[in-house]
Amino acid sequence: MTAKLSEAAKGVYIIAATPFTDDGALDLQSVDTLTDFYLRCGVHGFTLLGMMGEAHKLTAEESIEVVKRVVGRAGDRQVIVGVSHAGLENVRRLSHEVMVAGAAGVMVAPPAGLKGDDGIYNYYAQVFAALGPDIPVVYQDYPQATGVYLPPAVFERLVDDFKQLVMLKHEDWPGLAKLTRVREGEKKPGRRRVSILVGNGGLYLPQELRRGADGAMTGFAYPEMMVDVVAAHARGERERAHDLFDAYLPLARYEQQAGVGLAVRKFLLQERGVIASDFVRKPGPKLSAQDVDDLRFLVQRQDKRLREIG
Amino acid sequence: MTAKLSEAAKGVYIIAATPFTDDGALDLQSVDTLTDFYLRCGVHGFTLLGMMGEAHKLTAEESIEVVKRVVGRAGDRQVIVGVSHAGLENVRRLSHEVMVAGAAGVMVAPPAGLKGDDGIYNYYAQVFAALGPDIPVVYQDYPQATGVYLPPAVFERLVDDFKQLVMLKHEDWPGLAKLTRVREGEKKPGRRRVSILVGNGGLYLPQELRRGADGAMTGFAYPEMMVDVVAAHARGERERAHDLFDAYLPLARYEQQAGVGLAVRKFLLQERGVIASDFVRKPGPKLSAQDVDDLRFLVQRQDKRLREIG
Amino acid sequence: MTAKLSEAAKGVYIIAATPFTDDGALDLQSVDTLTDFYLRCGVHGFTLLGMMGEAHKLTAEESIEVVKRVVGRAGDRQVIVGVSHAGLENVRRLSHEVMVAGAAGVMVAPPAGLKGDDGIYNYYAQVFAALGPDIPVVYQDYPQATGVYLPPAVFERLVDDFKQLVMLKHEDWPGLAKLTRVREGEKKPGRRRVSILVGNGGLYLPQELRRGADGAMTGFAYPEMMVDVVAAHARGERERAHDLFDAYLPLARYEQQAGVGLAVRKFLLQERGVIASDFVRKPGPKLSAQDVDDLRFLVQRQDKRLREIG
Amino acid sequence: MTAKLSEAAKGVYIIAATPFTDDGALDLQSVDTLTDFYLRCGVHGFTLLGMMGEAHKLTAEESIEVVKRVVGRAGDRQVIVGVSHAGLENVRRLSHEVMVAGAAGVMVAPPAGLKGDDGIYNYYAQVFAALGPDIPVVYQDYPQATGVYLPPAVFERLVDDFKQLVMLKHEDWPGLAKLTRVREGEKKPGRRRVSILVGNGGLYLPQELRRGADGAMTGFAYPEMMVDVVAAHARGERERAHDLFDAYLPLARYEQQAGVGLAVRKFLLQERGVIASDFVRKPGPKLSAQDVDDLRFLVQRQDKRLREIG
Repeated sequence: MTAKLSEAAKGVYIIAATPFTDDGALDLQSVDTLTDFYLRCGVHGFTLLGMMGEAHKLTAEESIEVVKRVVGRAGDRQVIVGVSHAGLENVRRLSHEVMVAGAAGVMVAPPAGLKGDDGIYNYYAQVFAALGPDIPVVYQDYPQATGVYLPPAVFERLVDDFKQLVMLKHEDWPGLAKLTRVREGEKKPGRRRVSILVGNGGLYLPQELRRGADGAMTGFAYPEMMVDVVAAHARGERERAHDLFDAYLPLARYEQQAGVGLAVRKFLLQERGVIASDFVRKPGPKLSAQDVDDLRFLVQRQDKRLREIG
Repeated sequence: MTAKLSEAAKGVYIIAATPFTDDGALDLQSVDTLTDFYLRCGVHGFTLLGMMGEAHKLTAEESIEVVKRVVGRAGDRQVIVGVSHAGLENVRRLSHEVMVAGAAGVMVAPPAGLKGDDGIYNYYAQVFAALGPDIPVVYQDYPQATGVYLPPAVFERLVDDFKQLVMLKHEDWPGLAKLTRVREGEKKPGRRRVSILVGNGGLYLPQELRRGADGAMTGFAYPEMMVDVVAAHARGERERAHDLFDAYLPLARYEQQAGVGLAVRKFLLQERGVIASDFVRKPGPKLSAQDVDDLRFLVQRQDKRLREIG
Repeated sequence: MTAKLSEAAKGVYIIAATPFTDDGALDLQSVDTLTDFYLRCGVHGFTLLGMMGEAHKLTAEESIEVVKRVVGRAGDRQVIVGVSHAGLENVRRLSHEVMVAGAAGVMVAPPAGLKGDDGIYNYYAQVFAALGPDIPVVYQDYPQATGVYLPPAVFERLVDDFKQLVMLKHEDWPGLAKLTRVREGEKKPGRRRVSILVGNGGLYLPQELRRGADGAMTGFAYPEMMVDVVAAHARGERERAHDLFDAYLPLARYEQQAGVGLAVRKFLLQERGVIASDFVRKPGPKLSAQDVDDLRFLVQRQDKRLREIG
Repeated sequence: MTAKLSEAAKGVYIIAATPFTDDGALDLQSVDTLTDFYLRCGVHGFTLLGMMGEAHKLTAEESIEVVKRVVGRAGDRQVIVGVSHAGLENVRRLSHEVMVAGAAGVMVAPPAGLKGDDGIYNYYAQVFAALGPDIPVVYQDYPQATGVYLPPAVFERLVDDFKQLVMLKHEDWPGLAKLTRVREGEKKPGRRRVSILVGNGGLYLPQELRRGADGAMTGFAYPEMMVDVVAAHARGERERAHDLFDAYLPLARYEQQAGVGLAVRKFLLQERGVIASDFVRKPGPKLSAQDVDDLRFLVQRQDKRLREIG
């Protein structure tokens, strides 16, 4: 059994895709091959049932099945599970289920419509009260999807008041200034330093690492980019980190098209041979022949550039 | 077993509250007394698991339990069940479950983010393909919550192409012009006339009936108002319909406060003795002492005014 | 010259419509007759160039022309002018222009996109710095239009730090709890009590007065309702205030249809003979024959009910 | 005098920044040097008073002053001017003013809140009726800012019905599929082929050119990238177009941070010596020391990479 998630978490926690067969059934065989692929890429952990994992299109049974399958195969790698739900009692119930199934922590996004700084604080205070002190929690800060901006001052109040809040999934956009601000705020005597992993497809990863991010939590189809950039940064090799990042950037940028990105990601994972089908459950995006042509051309150029930089 | 929902539906389909005990458990005893109360009020049908029914805070098991309980007690009154879900396969699965449990039809709201007229048409075309021709469907048009405006021309295309679309739950605001427009469009030779029931707490009910609405589908805590106004309208008594409506309007207006309305409604139902507790599952609104004072004063005035008009 | 706006302001500050001729030109003659009508209704002040005044469809020259015309005719009644603008320098310039023209104060709404409690505070701090201490300011709290929720704690910080903030135009919805909360907060030793006038067409006026509102700032076409309700409340006649209010409520509710209300209001003002044309500048709403029929019927019933209650 | 804008327009129409002095005054000297710089970069036209030009923070007088200054210096290069305004009469008046001042055409974005396909069509039909047949119009399709999605079918109806609609400013995101779809639709016999220039900081420029875009209309601080990529594409050199694009992509991506991008752009233009100050009018973003460090590092790498690819 893996350790519980803590403030010390760092590296790449990959947001795992959920593979289906061509007729839409959950493909557990591909869950295995995909998990193995992520492990080979060197990821440090997994995040399941996030917004990009088609979690909201699974049945409750399928969700727990996926969690158990990945946990069973991920060895000592931690698994975080998204448990956001409209009802607080359901957040509690889901959290207990996945922790029992071996998750290392849970991730909670704010529901739409929270009002003002106090509205956010009070919602999470209710969540923490419902979950109790023993379940580590990640705050998923993704205002582009939730409509809820997280002010640094609110995050700090939550960190000060609730020990189980151990990580910020930082996906605000633009978010560089906030990242700097949160790390500055942690210099206050007595405040904990939490783990910060960044999203947005890793599109600002080198800049975010320099501002204090501990790694990435996103689902780019070339997880090795994030693993290598994080490692180069850790070694203090700024130019090398950028060289690697820039080689993948044309594709990373292409993947970051809202509403299409999931289809791009699954297509690339299928092209790489790690899932059997790039099926996306309805309603969902489909790639056109031109999209596929774009992608294959970008992959070729990416391969060439990676050989150039060695 | 009741007949399936059809274009002939009319009257008041009450959006039923979901009663809980004071500690938040589903209160099936109160489901019964509430169902009986609605029947005594003279409602013509029920709508379960709508947005105001806290459906999103129930577990899957609780949802089906509520459906079965109400169906079992509603006698020959039709029960419509909300089955909106992010995944199309889940819409299909839920619909089959509730139809097997005795529902007369299902209600589907559009997901946020549909683009353009074709985006709406194509989504519902997928829904109808998934459900097949034998499950009657209500289009829930509630743009204030979904962010999706339904153009009359799109609704007409759907009515023309899919026989199972039998009802419009009309809750756009403002919506009087749209209602007139839809009824005008039905004069085209060959187009079906569908049932239109209105929402928004009945706040425009007399005007909507004159424009062709067949009744109301909303959850105002005094369903007898809607039953009586619909009946007066059917008898051609315009002044009487307004007299009745106006007597209840101060309270109906008070109930129509977004985010608070549900607590108001449950409080009033508890005051009327038909549910044991006005508990709202978290996160949810709570009434203050001043709200309660407002409400009791309005109820007193309403009682007095109803005696005056006889 | 009238006194500057202060925390002592109370009563009805009518949001004045801007009358045009049938071909869309500014109708200064009707500005005069409308101003006289409002004065006869007993209003205590005027608010010009608010969101409902079609301010955004006027040229800069027309705007200042309207302000001067009303100021010149309003005698000792104060005139507040909306000066919200995307650029802070333009807010400053406009404010100076209208104050020189005789305004008693200015009203500023927050621009869309302010982030967090501090985002709101900082924006208004910039506004107050730009305007200086001598121009009284009204905070226009209308989140349904601006998308910016005003937390009571932020309003209190602004009141504590900026003496020129003298009034809250309270138009949040639902807003009763906020009103109570702001009045509670003012009990803190040393904090000023500001004027609070309410909007939303007066739809919750009796409840809002009981919670500490000092009056109304909205444009309902029957300003005498608001004047009379405020007066009855001041005399402590709760039932009388409600009797009056309820008589007008069916029409007030009809007017509160987003996007249509302006056309309803101008139609009623024209029917009452106080403006020459109900022309609304494009793009804008138009009433249908059925709308007109609805309105005339409601006015008849309103007249009858007013006679009944005496 | 330059020719009026037509369907034949292609290349790069730069969205010009509006330079201010350090104390916020309009800096006409810098307008000149910036215009000269753009011309040296090889732009094919200019777009003034767009959303990124701080147009909404200028006074009416400043706006027309900027237009005249650029027109007077741009020689035979066409100038398009943004004239979006809440009032239709103001759109008409502004359009006439700028056309008289020498603009080649005007650009109009849809106002927020248009409902359904017909709502968009009807709004533009009103615009075209107000402007008359002699003013060429660009449809600014930027739903991320306006909230209005433009369905291709609506654009086609407008193109078919209004000859003065000559260009689509394509800034939807994701937008590749729409671009393909619009070009496909133009194959219908009798339909005009319009000019399509793309925005979003040029972030998808190579892909968009292959799908039929005629160039770019955006304000990236290195306009030569767009000029060179468009030229390479025109010569059929796909790899070269991508090599150039990729060299600038890290910086282009950095500039595309909503709410910060304008400050980045002005900083880079100042660094390049073509405007005297990077002042942004309030309320507006400011760069931190870390932002500046990021940018200088990226510019160095960009210079190095450009030398490598020759």
